[in-house]
Amino acid sequence: MQATLFQVEGDTLLAQGEAGLSETAWQLLGLSENDEITVTHPPAVESLASVRRRIYGNRLDARAFAEIVGDVAAGRYTEVHLAAFLTASAALPLDDNETADLTRAMINVGDQMHWNVPIVVDKHCVGGLPGNRTTPIVVAIVAANGLVMPKTSSRAITSPAGTADTMETLAPVDLSIETLRRVVDGEGGCIAWGGAVHLSPADDIFVRVERELDVDTEGQLVASVLSKKIAAGSTHVVIDIPVGATAKVRSKAAAEQLAHRLNTVATRFGLAMTCLQTDGSQPVGRGIGPALEAFDVLAVLQNLSNAPDDLRQRAALLAGAALEIGGKAEKNAGVALALKTLADGRAWSKFEAICEAQGGLREPPKAAHVYPLVAPRAGRVVHINNRKIARLAKLAGAPESKAAGVHVEVRLGDEIDRGQPLVHVHAETTGELSYALDYAARTGDFVSVES
Amino acid sequence: MQATLFQVEGDTLLAQGEAGLSETAWQLLGLSENDEITVTHPPAVESLASVRRRIYGNRLDARAFAEIVGDVAAGRYTEVHLAAFLTASAALPLDDNETADLTRAMINVGDQMHWNVPIVVDKHCVGGLPGNRTTPIVVAIVAANGLVMPKTSSRAITSPAGTADTMETLAPVDLSIETLRRVVDGEGGCIAWGGAVHLSPADDIFVRVERELDVDTEGQLVASVLSKKIAAGSTHVVIDIPVGATAKVRSKAAAEQLAHRLNTVATRFGLAMTCLQTDGSQPVGRGIGPALEAFDVLAVLQNLSNAPDDLRQRAALLAGAALEIGGKAEKNAGVALALKTLADGRAWSKFEAICEAQGGLREPPKAAHVYPLVAPRAGRVVHINNRKIARLAKLAGAPESKAAGVHVEVRLGDEIDRGQPLVHVHAETTGELSYALDYAARTGDFVSVES
Repeated sequence: MQATLFQVEGDTLLAQGEAGLSETAWQLLGLSENDEITVTHPPAVESLASVRRRIYGNRLDARAFAEIVGDVAAGRYTEVHLAAFLTASAALPLDDNETADLTRAMINVGDQMHWNVPIVVDKHCVGGLPGNRTTPIVVAIVAANGLVMPKTSSRAITSPAGTADTMETLAPVDLSIETLRRVVDGEGGCIAWGGAVHLSPADDIFVRVERELDVDTEGQLVASVLSKKIAAGSTHVVIDIPVGATAKVRSKAAAEQLAHRLNTVATRFGLAMTCLQTDGSQPVGRGIGPALEAFDVLAVLQNLSNAPDDLRQRAALLAGAALEIGGKAEKNAGVALALKTLADGRAWSKFEAICEAQGGLREPPKAAHVYPLVAPRAGRVVHINNRKIARLAKLAGAPESKAAGVHVEVRLGDEIDRGQPLVHVHAETTGELSYALDYAARTGDFVSVES
Repeated sequence: MQATLFQVEGDTLLAQGEAGLSETAWQLLGLSENDEITVTHPPAVESLASVRRRIYGNRLDARAFAEIVGDVAAGRYTEVHLAAFLTASAALPLDDNETADLTRAMINVGDQMHWNVPIVVDKHCVGGLPGNRTTPIVVAIVAANGLVMPKTSSRAITSPAGTADTMETLAPVDLSIETLRRVVDGEGGCIAWGGAVHLSPADDIFVRVERELDVDTEGQLVASVLSKKIAAGSTHVVIDIPVGATAKVRSKAAAEQLAHRLNTVATRFGLAMTCLQTDGSQPVGRGIGPALEAFDVLAVLQNLSNAPDDLRQRAALLAGAALEIGGKAEKNAGVALALKTLADGRAWSKFEAICEAQGGLREPPKAAHVYPLVAPRAGRVVHINNRKIARLAKLAGAPESKAAGVHVEVRLGDEIDRGQPLVHVHAETTGELSYALDYAARTGDFVSVES
């Protein structure tokens, strides 16, 4: 393991010959108090020569990616090295060969799961659309219809919540590979955090740095998605690509290019894939942030009267595609079957059973501090800025503060009054609330109203 | 100030409401025990949006560079942010406008010196050639001839020693701006560490990350060199560009391009410049590493019989150019005047006086562990690999371990016997020695001998 050595003076903290360790180091090394450790210089990391070549515009081969990813997964790269590799892969985007080589390298350094069924379905959203939390609903619908869907999800990269962040407010998600297998064997599906099961562990390291950079490139995105799916043993995958002016993918052309790249690399690994372009013009549901999104998910699954219909329809669209690709519905009959599975309560029963198997259904937390941003004038909602709203939710503390985020009170086309709340900011502490409200005061135009 | 917050459990280390600080933080904040501090989230760093735009291939304007460099100098960038900015500037090299804008931004965030004389000379070597430690000799010659040369130097970026590292083994180099002024007013010259006087402080932050990445790009190099020279109040500068297959600049064409870039940007700031291409085919002098290079410098200044003649000739060439550009010698008469100043002892007297003014001449340290790498066969020395030798010296501990490095015992063209030492590795600890010897055993071909 590689670590930074800090020195202390005097003997109040440590005696001569003693070292203190971080909690992470205690766990990784499996040490007890008074154990002996050996500290040496780290060996020279030879794969950094490949990173430097990549910075200067040279393409890398499979061997170089294998060496880089091996060193990354072993913890031999510093933050500076990781940032340089990711930046170089953004400045000169990875091509198809590099993306496939990176994907394979990321699969090979982690665990891989195998299932004794011919069809294993999965879904993924490329992100960029706040509140688009369809996964828990899709898994429940698909598993309720007898397909196997061992879903592993990431935490947020640049967004206020990832599926794992949201799901964690409803049930434990850091399942061991044995628990995950038991849940899926029993219920046909699960919604787990990918990092805990050590599928594509290098990805989790990359994701952490991408989050700090707020950079998320196509090549890394494809390698990240596909390495997780393939390592999880998936054979059929549905991809949700939201398209909108302030979504991650901004145009139909960009969505098609991304779908092409995903399909090209997936084909090399024998993975069947359906890419769906969806509306990315405004947030999905009402809540943005782990717990706020969880309440939307519960409302749809429980058929509550206030359930956001846009979230229900999107989940049904994706679940329908999965049911079709997985052979449980005829072509164009998937969506109807999905909606029926929600309406008759089978999806909710399945979701409850999955949560119980993962360790027990939980009540998501609620924020201590809620503050409205109100309409400066009466009129019609003509634009909702996904990026600004996502940033507002992050500044309020999401995803680290589970209850934090933004609740969107209006939809495009709504007629509203002056002073009517447009969104509510939710925060766990007054510090985080004022941090978000400072940004709100500086920025404005989260929701544009035209009189 | 921005810092990383680590949390501890229990109350053995810290009581509730207490925080421990690093030595750096104590100093930067000017705190005493029991002082109160306030810890909040850092404000969002808006200039990172420009870094992201640069990663994706967009050129930046003067305002963007000013904002980035301002945030960097204020300590608001993490290692990840710094690495991303530097990598982006390497992947898509900075153009002339960007380089000039970056240079100006780096000047503006630091102190600037002004001298009441019309001509202030300076010199700089673009590096990449181990042992090329001419600066202390050049300053002594130039100041002995009545020119003003307030030299500030950097520590090593990717090399085993920078001028400041070497000079520090001979005299204090972390001079305050007041001390520096006093030394130069009294002696006409100094050899100080640039970082201590807060000239271009952002550069020192960039340099630290460049060192970790082992990446050193043309745009950053030009901005680094020129910002330091201009902030130091220089009007006339001589640049040494060593050219060789394993030097930093590998071809005459690359040297001309770099000289052109340096001249172009220098002209925008009204700086007169002479660029000299010099032989970069083998290390200069015998020693590589702070103290080992200092012994070579002393031998030349003291006219010792074992003084390396190549170091003497290079120093005279550069000092000659400075004497000519500064009006103390006719065209083509500078080198002869420089050699005369060395031979008659005036350069050594001046150097002694400068060291005394900086805080006292010191004896450089000697390494506890010295190990020879010997010739595997008899024959002629046909190639000396600067890069491998530099890396060997770094692995032996240079520049952090002042006495560490490599002593080169042969020159290109020498006829040698089997078993004759080619280089000696110097290390302060057995750990560092074995670290270097491991690399030597894996690598070989530091000195190529043909029978």
